[in-house]
Amino acid sequence: MKLYDADWAPSPRRVRIFLAEKGIEVPRQRIDLKSAEQFHDDYLAINPRGAVPALEFDDGEVLCESAAICRYFEAETPDPPLFGSDPREIGKIESWTRRIEGDGYVAVVYVFRNTAPVFKDRAIVGNFGAVPQIPELAARGNKMWHCFLEAFDQQLGDNRWVTGDRFSFADITALVTIDFARAVKLDVPQRLGNLWRWHEEASARPSAGA
Amino acid sequence: MKLYDADWAPSPRRVRIFLAEKGIEVPRQRIDLKSAEQFHDDYLAINPRGAVPALEFDDGEVLCESAAICRYFEAETPDPPLFGSDPREIGKIESWTRRIEGDGYVAVVYVFRNTAPVFKDRAIVGNFGAVPQIPELAARGNKMWHCFLEAFDQQLGDNRWVTGDRFSFADITALVTIDFARAVKLDVPQRLGNLWRWHEEASARPSAGA
Repeated sequence: MKLYDADWAPSPRRVRIFLAEKGIEVPRQRIDLKSAEQFHDDYLAINPRGAVPALEFDDGEVLCESAAICRYFEAETPDPPLFGSDPREIGKIESWTRRIEGDGYVAVVYVFRNTAPVFKDRAIVGNFGAVPQIPELAARGNKMWHCFLEAFDQQLGDNRWVTGDRFSFADITALVTIDFARAVKLDVPQRLGNLWRWHEEASARPSAGA
Repeated sequence: MKLYDADWAPSPRRVRIFLAEKGIEVPRQRIDLKSAEQFHDDYLAINPRGAVPALEFDDGEVLCESAAICRYFEAETPDPPLFGSDPREIGKIESWTRRIEGDGYVAVVYVFRNTAPVFKDRAIVGNFGAVPQIPELAARGNKMWHCFLEAFDQQLGDNRWVTGDRFSFADITALVTIDFARAVKLDVPQRLGNLWRWHEEASARPSAGA
């Protein structure tokens, strides 16, 4: 088994934090995004979409998408449960994960991929050929981002972790999203005290450095 | 328990098909999207995002997001398994579900919500206030849609159902996405024979009419 990994990018980090929380070690091969190695023929033979992470099994089958790789490992190694352990908790973790992704992560991607010069003709993730940037999407993304942060801060006023007393995949998704946003210079207002309390606690876990 | 449901829209249909496959009956309340009932105060008190579906428990807690509602019911009623039953299958179903959503469903939404006059200042799902349409996103969506359809047709050349021999949540997601696309007049080329073979078989299941 081999995990195709990459520095800095949020989706590979999501898998690394997940594996660290589970105490699972997997052989890794680093794909250099700065030199666009994800679009070299060798890597496109692994994942034709040109995206990291990807998990290659010993029989050659490849599993793509960070959430799918995490779910594979959750089923292989159920403890500690990071996707929940009873139906209500499972539902809540999925619901908040979707909201963090759909309102938060997507917002950051809207801003970053439609403004950064490096993505000039690659405005969406994947191997779609030339896709021009749409600067108006950055304004939409900024609006979504601040709506998301308000709702997220409010949720953390009532809960230690995103969905309650237990750290979960939703927390991993949120930590990766917020650190990605800060890295690409989106604002996370200091006045959001619940969010920053949570961020400090999440960042102090050993897994955060994975 | 009560499921807030709506006619025509793809996400509520995803939950209805899922419940029909499981043989689960849940009391439903229909929200009339045509009169924008999802933004009336009564419904915003249930789901402040103004989105359907939502599942309300007897203790008043509300679970939003169609995938989260389905995962709740999968955990409550594991048979038949629609999210997979071994780690590799679980991973594959999640991976294809993500791809169908991210490359396919998102593409349809890009086209529809950025062109249909009814969404003039509501170009994204959720309660974000006024969000203007971006016509360029329709072009991006059309490009994504046709790339997705080619990849999806290819996958169905090797598999009876999306991820293998068993009907799953990925098939439900794809059926809902493709029927939504057709309803809003996106093209699904007739030459994609594998896709249409699969579509006929999926549509013939009693659950498809749910």
